[in-house]
Amino acid sequence: MQEKFEPNALQSIFWAQSIAVVGASSSPHKLGHIILKNVLEGGFQGKIYPINPGGGKILGLDVFPNIEAIPGKCDLVIFCIPAHQVIPSMFAAAEKSASGAIIISGGFRETGNQDLETQLVETARQLHIRLVGPNCQGINFTPNRLCASWPLFTRQGALAVISQSGTIAAALAGWAEEDGLGISGVISLGNQADLCETDFLEVFGQDQQTRVIAMYIEGVKDGRRFMQVASRISKPVIVLKSGRTPGGVKAAASHTKSLAGSDQVFSGICNQLGILRVETIEELYDVARGLPVYTSPAGPRLAIITSSGGSGILAVDAAEKNGLHMAEMDDEMRTTLSQSALPKHMVIGNPLDLTGSALSSEYVEAMQIFEHSQPSDMYLLIFGDPIPGSAERLAPVIGLMKKPVAVCYLGGGNLQAEETARFQAEGIPVYATPERAVSFLAKLSQRGQRLQKPKENCYEQ
Amino acid sequence: MQEKFEPNALQSIFWAQSIAVVGASSSPHKLGHIILKNVLEGGFQGKIYPINPGGGKILGLDVFPNIEAIPGKCDLVIFCIPAHQVIPSMFAAAEKSASGAIIISGGFRETGNQDLETQLVETARQLHIRLVGPNCQGINFTPNRLCASWPLFTRQGALAVISQSGTIAAALAGWAEEDGLGISGVISLGNQADLCETDFLEVFGQDQQTRVIAMYIEGVKDGRRFMQVASRISKPVIVLKSGRTPGGVKAAASHTKSLAGSDQVFSGICNQLGILRVETIEELYDVARGLPVYTSPAGPRLAIITSSGGSGILAVDAAEKNGLHMAEMDDEMRTTLSQSALPKHMVIGNPLDLTGSALSSEYVEAMQIFEHSQPSDMYLLIFGDPIPGSAERLAPVIGLMKKPVAVCYLGGGNLQAEETARFQAEGIPVYATPERAVSFLAKLSQRGQRLQKPKENCYEQ
Repeated sequence: MQEKFEPNALQSIFWAQSIAVVGASSSPHKLGHIILKNVLEGGFQGKIYPINPGGGKILGLDVFPNIEAIPGKCDLVIFCIPAHQVIPSMFAAAEKSASGAIIISGGFRETGNQDLETQLVETARQLHIRLVGPNCQGINFTPNRLCASWPLFTRQGALAVISQSGTIAAALAGWAEEDGLGISGVISLGNQADLCETDFLEVFGQDQQTRVIAMYIEGVKDGRRFMQVASRISKPVIVLKSGRTPGGVKAAASHTKSLAGSDQVFSGICNQLGILRVETIEELYDVARGLPVYTSPAGPRLAIITSSGGSGILAVDAAEKNGLHMAEMDDEMRTTLSQSALPKHMVIGNPLDLTGSALSSEYVEAMQIFEHSQPSDMYLLIFGDPIPGSAERLAPVIGLMKKPVAVCYLGGGNLQAEETARFQAEGIPVYATPERAVSFLAKLSQRGQRLQKPKENCYEQ
Repeated sequence: MQEKFEPNALQSIFWAQSIAVVGASSSPHKLGHIILKNVLEGGFQGKIYPINPGGGKILGLDVFPNIEAIPGKCDLVIFCIPAHQVIPSMFAAAEKSASGAIIISGGFRETGNQDLETQLVETARQLHIRLVGPNCQGINFTPNRLCASWPLFTRQGALAVISQSGTIAAALAGWAEEDGLGISGVISLGNQADLCETDFLEVFGQDQQTRVIAMYIEGVKDGRRFMQVASRISKPVIVLKSGRTPGGVKAAASHTKSLAGSDQVFSGICNQLGILRVETIEELYDVARGLPVYTSPAGPRLAIITSSGGSGILAVDAAEKNGLHMAEMDDEMRTTLSQSALPKHMVIGNPLDLTGSALSSEYVEAMQIFEHSQPSDMYLLIFGDPIPGSAERLAPVIGLMKKPVAVCYLGGGNLQAEETARFQAEGIPVYATPERAVSFLAKLSQRGQRLQKPKENCYEQ
């Protein structure tokens, strides 16, 4: 198990060794059942106490009528009960030494009950209990095998997700699970009555398993503190912030019941802090999953090796649109290529089009020629056909490269699914289109450019 | 079987009743094997003649030593043999009354052998044989269950793909197969020595099964003829054209060995003809699969009904960025909503946020209230949670609506996969993110605006 992170106040939530689920239910569709089931099936190793006045057994566990009845202490209490019942139970939780609570329950500020939420926070402060939520989808922290959320995701990975939308968090984690990349943690922020996006940014900044942090936010609670915390984080942070248009600002205000703040100001802050901003959920995922794998390129020059001419051209269009430069190829390199064992009918240039009969070994050879003749800052390998052995041959090469080598696989039928799974099992993300791969490389390059500015080095590894 | 389309010259290719595969092979990795296997497994009902001097049997079929040995006539000959062997075989094909040939073989203009290609075309003209390719990935035409291409796709659908890249064609058809939407046809254009993008545009313009045409091109062979043909097509045509940047133009010139032409001029032509232009492969697919399902909106007003607040806000941002307008909601409608049976804690506005506990029946009720109170021009339904019964409840409603109702499903875990499959089994495409759904709606709206211009009505249904 990894060394636990600071700050201590949040340890009891993330590294809880005993958990109570208040409102545990035997009805499969109720959240009190789903959460309990996910905690169990997620493989949580500590103690689990279902709480329900009805008693009996749920999912094979003894049910306790109330928190008071729990034998011994309880680090973390998860509430799935009506809003007005939460505060009374907090006192009992404190008696059991709980220092964290996840309030799944809605019915607070978001429904106009600001007073109830204020009272909840005041109670929690008084009892030294930190709160996640209320009105949230819980948390998932795979280093502690703690899925106090839904859907159930258990695969351990390098990606942490912090989100004001439980749905967007679940979508990202779901894609990471499907792609075999996994997650370190997922936070559904809810109303952020106590703990906010910046607290969790700090947690994942220190968590050893986390190597990239993806955020969906509608605004930040305290801009100054956000900047302080973000400036100390050396890991890549990618932010999707909604409210970029007047209509979006209005909608965000309705959702979070708070002003989202100026989007331009936020962009300025991100630029200053080296935070990458993205425009869509898909881009948030695409950039997040590639960042832990690759180092930033030393410059903007891109070389493309492809078996699909058309895909290569689309990649060039996307690269130029995104500020990358196509690496030049001199006559000497053209001669080297034409004298190599690469296919005689290949189209020599950048993109280097090996054409549809390309073998996976030829990608390796082509990269070697680039590296010896005119090294590029980054590579894009497009497997635009069913090319057997591509993952087996290329994954080790990519692993050893000191430069980013993005992989795109498309048009390859059944073999594509197999090869994509093999690449991803080796931790190498595969992009489904050249444009998505290039969009990732462009962000990686943007991060690299920021790393090179000496003044900003403080927050980089 | 559908009524066959004009022009007659191409009927023998698409509606061939007898096919020879020249270069048929028993080696599973050779194209001469793959093509033969796909013709067989695609369920082709006509006669299939594998040709190989070695004779014997391949895949259970009698092999003929040469075309001359075929008993009776042969409509279509598929060549998977070295380039220099093709022309001699063409004479034999003509003897068997072939009027079409698909030249899979490379080794012509694309490798510098312009003379050989010229000679091929002259021979074909003389023999009254029309050519697909050379240097192509073949064709797939599901109305005739003719998969003379790879990968094998058999599901019948409304989407025709015409592509200068075999890979991009295969990617689009593969996604359509996976999503249960299927294809009417796929054309890999190759060198277009004879038949070009415009010929196939004309074919699919007349084909009864085809209801939308998606093209990937690097340029058009004859601008004037393209405009003539496109102006007569009433079906939606969507074009992804590469070579939008200087680097892309250069790369396209290397790939197709011809000038791509001015991108701005092409955009102008598309605007004039009502052709929708897209920027990425993903967008080409997203727009293409939605267009046959939905009518164009009468105006730009969009109403969003969601269970995920965050996804709704991102949809608003995307909508405003793409020129759609969020439908207004007056006080009377707000009152109607608040007095309805919809969840008391929903966030009233546009987006209408039913929140995470939303039921599928509530989406129907919310749409009814919109329609009665302040009808919108189009709807976006975001299922941002595992919502059971969404496809069962909503698919019939969407089917009956006279307005576009796009569906987005995300963050719904295992249930999402099931519900997405159910929607798609009913012919309703599901978008994985709100941004992709909005991007589709924006293109649908763009098409609608063009339909409303009286002068351009000539080419619309």
